[in-house]
Amino acid sequence: MNNKVLIIGSMALDTVETPFGRVEDAVGGAGVYAATAASLPAPGRLGGVIGDDFPQTALTELEERGVDLTGVQRIPGAQSFRWSGEYHYDMSQADTRDTQLNVFADFDPTLPPQWRDCDYVFLANIQPSLQLKVLQQVNSPMLTMSDTMNLWIETAREELLEVLSRVDVAAMNDAEIRQLTDEPNLAKAAQEVLQMGPQYVLVKKGEYGAALISAQGHFSLPCYPLPTVIDPTGAGDSFAGGFIGFLAWLGQTEEEHLRQAMAIGTVTAAACVEDFSISGLSRLTVSDLYQRYEALREMVEFAACPLEF
Amino acid sequence: MNNKVLIIGSMALDTVETPFGRVEDAVGGAGVYAATAASLPAPGRLGGVIGDDFPQTALTELEERGVDLTGVQRIPGAQSFRWSGEYHYDMSQADTRDTQLNVFADFDPTLPPQWRDCDYVFLANIQPSLQLKVLQQVNSPMLTMSDTMNLWIETAREELLEVLSRVDVAAMNDAEIRQLTDEPNLAKAAQEVLQMGPQYVLVKKGEYGAALISAQGHFSLPCYPLPTVIDPTGAGDSFAGGFIGFLAWLGQTEEEHLRQAMAIGTVTAAACVEDFSISGLSRLTVSDLYQRYEALREMVEFAACPLEF
Repeated sequence: MNNKVLIIGSMALDTVETPFGRVEDAVGGAGVYAATAASLPAPGRLGGVIGDDFPQTALTELEERGVDLTGVQRIPGAQSFRWSGEYHYDMSQADTRDTQLNVFADFDPTLPPQWRDCDYVFLANIQPSLQLKVLQQVNSPMLTMSDTMNLWIETAREELLEVLSRVDVAAMNDAEIRQLTDEPNLAKAAQEVLQMGPQYVLVKKGEYGAALISAQGHFSLPCYPLPTVIDPTGAGDSFAGGFIGFLAWLGQTEEEHLRQAMAIGTVTAAACVEDFSISGLSRLTVSDLYQRYEALREMVEFAACPLEF
Repeated sequence: MNNKVLIIGSMALDTVETPFGRVEDAVGGAGVYAATAASLPAPGRLGGVIGDDFPQTALTELEERGVDLTGVQRIPGAQSFRWSGEYHYDMSQADTRDTQLNVFADFDPTLPPQWRDCDYVFLANIQPSLQLKVLQQVNSPMLTMSDTMNLWIETAREELLEVLSRVDVAAMNDAEIRQLTDEPNLAKAAQEVLQMGPQYVLVKKGEYGAALISAQGHFSLPCYPLPTVIDPTGAGDSFAGGFIGFLAWLGQTEEEHLRQAMAIGTVTAAACVEDFSISGLSRLTVSDLYQRYEALREMVEFAACPLEF
């Protein structure tokens, strides 16, 4: 595996409360979740920004997983990005209690020169103008993917459209796709997003799984069913990380490979939500990944329609 | 095909408004939707109750599809069950404007003697005590399936539990499963429903598809994606009808056959929502059914996990 993965995203300290417990200042952030998930198939590079308070043990753990942190900016005397939220009974949505941008407010994603040459790029949810800045620095990657959020659809639509015109895969949740296109029908809305540029729309549906939509077709997967969901934080980013890490490991980008990557992402997202912070992802082994991938395949399999029907 | 399907459910006149139009006193009701969907693979028997106002053309159309209406009770001088509702922007849930039980208030499902011998039974959403009454009248069917609603979970829990202890397949939407078990985690909640008696739980997830859960495993299917959803009324019943009709046609009830039936149900549900009332279902041909089944299969297919991974 020589394909280089680049992930740019937040590195955070999260305080999260769910019906199953609470963690304070736990390691999180889209970039950290994605890089941790991607590292199982293909350890990559993580770019972001942290303050003095980001625990060295977490950085060491990422490095031990093979993640290259050369592009992480450390701002002396400053605080890391902090997010605090609570999940209730149905765990489908977080109530944000507090967001402190701190070092993230002035994040300027300048890549180390040796990182300009990379093959698989995941731009986690940050300001679209910053995503663009990353895209301008990389030399002809094989596949680029972006995530976004409702805030940028409202406040930075032009820049977001510019990002979408440049990436191969646009990851968004179903509500964001509807919001962006003002079209309630998801199948039609996804086709409208394709018109904006990307070759694929990766639709995140939370507990209902994910879909990969292109002009040619529609691929859909349920969630990996878990008897215990402890903390949904980071699920989408863990999905994206597993997805891009697998493609980098495989080094191929046809639709059939993206479908396999969707299954890997489904398994890494499930591992994420099994515990707080990156604990669930950290415990996932290559053998677990393989077994759950095959279990997922069995879970959606059905025989051909009887011909005489 | 000699397996006899029995469907008991409402026969209604619906007034429905969606962003795409409005119909007044259109033919509907769970029984009608299910019987129409089932008739494509296996025309069955439909039991219900109607007033003078139920259009003869609709009854003739059902009979032309091969549906046996011997068990339909016609109450002279009375009005049929009427429901009126509105769907908004996202089409995921109806706002009920009006419900007039009319003849349905005193419905007493007494089967014609020759109907006691039947193989596949679908008890659409009616009072659980009436569902029980039907089950008491049938002789050893091969497969029984029930639907229900939040109202009965609240007001007729004992009778509902009795129904669940007697049927093979319990169809419910995800919110009802959570409500019945008071367990937010769907995988765990479904296992609790299995403890109540049924061999399978058929989880209806609206636009997110459906799952079939047993003690042994989990099968999941997305919705059939449609560029235009005109009216979601009757989707769940059309799913159940296609499901039970296919099993009756096949005459087999192993899990692999139920998985195929789930795919048939997915296609009949999609045909239902493509138009108001039963118009979409009426247009569906056997050839459409076959082609969409195979398209759905292609839509969830992905290759094995690379072994060297």
